Amino acid sequence: MLEVIFYIAITAEAMTAALAAGRRNMDWFGVCLLACVTALGGGTIRDIFLDHYPLYWVANPYVLLLICGAALVTIALARVVDRLRWPFLLLDGLGLVVFTIIGCNIGMEVGAHPLIVLVAGMVTGIFGGILRDVLCNDVPLVFRGELYATVSIVTGAIYYFGLAANIQSDVVILVAIAVGFPLRVFAIIKKWEMPKFVYDKDLR
Amino acid sequence: MLEVIFYIAITAEAMTAALAAGRRNMDWFGVCLLACVTALGGGTIRDIFLDHYPLYWVANPYVLLLICGAALVTIALARVVDRLRWPFLLLDGLGLVVFTIIGCNIGMEVGAHPLIVLVAGMVTGIFGGILRDVLCNDVPLVFRGELYATVSIVTGAIYYFGLAANIQSDVVILVAIAVGFPLRVFAIIKKWEMPKFVYDKDLR
Amino acid sequence: MLEVIFYIAITAEAMTAALAAGRRNMDWFGVCLLACVTALGGGTIRDIFLDHYPLYWVANPYVLLLICGAALVTIALARVVDRLRWPFLLLDGLGLVVFTIIGCNIGMEVGAHPLIVLVAGMVTGIFGGILRDVLCNDVPLVFRGELYATVSIVTGAIYYFGLAANIQSDVVILVAIAVGFPLRVFAIIKKWEMPKFVYDKDLR
Repeated sequence: MLEVIFYIAITAEAMTAALAAGRRNMDWFGVCLLACVTALGGGTIRDIFLDHYPLYWVANPYVLLLICGAALVTIALARVVDRLRWPFLLLDGLGLVVFTIIGCNIGMEVGAHPLIVLVAGMVTGIFGGILRDVLCNDVPLVFRGELYATVSIVTGAIYYFGLAANIQSDVVILVAIAVGFPLRVFAIIKKWEMPKFVYDKDLR
Repeated sequence: MLEVIFYIAITAEAMTAALAAGRRNMDWFGVCLLACVTALGGGTIRDIFLDHYPLYWVANPYVLLLICGAALVTIALARVVDRLRWPFLLLDGLGLVVFTIIGCNIGMEVGAHPLIVLVAGMVTGIFGGILRDVLCNDVPLVFRGELYATVSIVTGAIYYFGLAANIQSDVVILVAIAVGFPLRVFAIIKKWEMPKFVYDKDLR
Repeated sequence: MLEVIFYIAITAEAMTAALAAGRRNMDWFGVCLLACVTALGGGTIRDIFLDHYPLYWVANPYVLLLICGAALVTIALARVVDRLRWPFLLLDGLGLVVFTIIGCNIGMEVGAHPLIVLVAGMVTGIFGGILRDVLCNDVPLVFRGELYATVSIVTGAIYYFGLAANIQSDVVILVAIAVGFPLRVFAIIKKWEMPKFVYDKDLR
């Protein structure tokens, strides 16, 4: 089940990245590349940090075709996709939670410290979006928007401590999703944000 | 012969990067660093993706001196270089094709899937320019300009399938260059571009 | 002693990064992430280049808590910190020198070529700041400001050649700091800069 949601999430990430590319008037190649970077960038950076090879997409190259396909479909259906704002946000939120769980899994697999397991989950969940924003020449949204990284940390903590408490893996996954996903949805609806640090003097 | 063209291409990449740095009023150090990132960035990212160590420039550090030398010469000769727009574009195009072939080679060397071999060639050919544009705070040109990544994919496909068909290596290299290089030159002359995806609504 | 200065330097880097984040109105999470990237990014990139695993912060995860703590304290004390411009610049300069020495050490540990040892020191010293500026959507300051990378290269050269000449390690470290640190301080006071390359024609 986690794998099915994983592919759905990757597809959703690819489609939102394609729309971001369209707002920058990128060409079709740029749309596909940005979709790949967004959907796979988080997991790739996590694997490089943890020296965990081969990278997922190097071992499973067909995922690249899935992502490029999703990106090109988005171009064709941009007018329809446009009306699907909420389904997208929901899929993106589900993706965040699932990416986090998968990332924590890899962290545990390589025997990392609990703190690093949470970081591995968070990097998987949010770094794709950070790379997308850097390539689009924006200050990353995750630094300023509604709760996003926090959702990832909460999800990862539930997952890690659930497993550490010897609760059955399937149950832990369901609970982590059942807490993390609604948390993200409410954050969007209620516009929950982390407090901001506003500082307007130049140090230099 | 591939190695000679490789060094010519690296030098050309370094010089175009130096001009880009000059347009941003960078200091001499910035010019050299941007030249190194542009000339070696694509191959470095490819090697990190494929866990292929040591990195080329770590094993052959004198290439760093070559690149910094080329960058500093560019500063000295900026007025002359300026009139050399076409030689530069030609060398850059030749470099794209040669970098692609070298990247595909490394991909095959580590036994990657054919799709990943093409990606390895493309990353080698275009990611140096993407890093240059990110450091210069631009949306990468490759996402919007004339055919560039496409040239890399076509070149890589000819090279890979040529070798897979057991044609002699030298012949395949020549054919790949003989197709890829003119394709890039015509793309510049005729302003061939990929279709663009223009989308102006904010999803969020 | 080097380790004590290392932690002081990491804390100083985290605090200057937090102020940079505040100027971009980032939220508390963004402040912490930017602080981690700035303080640890240079060493992380060096280790990835040299295939030197595990990464420092993966093996010593508590450093992440130290950095986030320093970043949050900076938020709380922004008004006080503001008046501490000079202490900060001094700590940042000391950090640059110490990061460089540590980076050179790792380079020698993996048996790299002398040129790569200097590069390893420089990457450790300056790439954290480059990543910070890229995430803040600026052209990296190190490409344009007062002597910074040069200080790193001078420090690294003294350290490397001092050890190569069989001088006692502690003495070499002290000499490297005693030259590199004042060099940076004078560069700020006297506004020493590398010559700039100003070029205003578009190649394309």
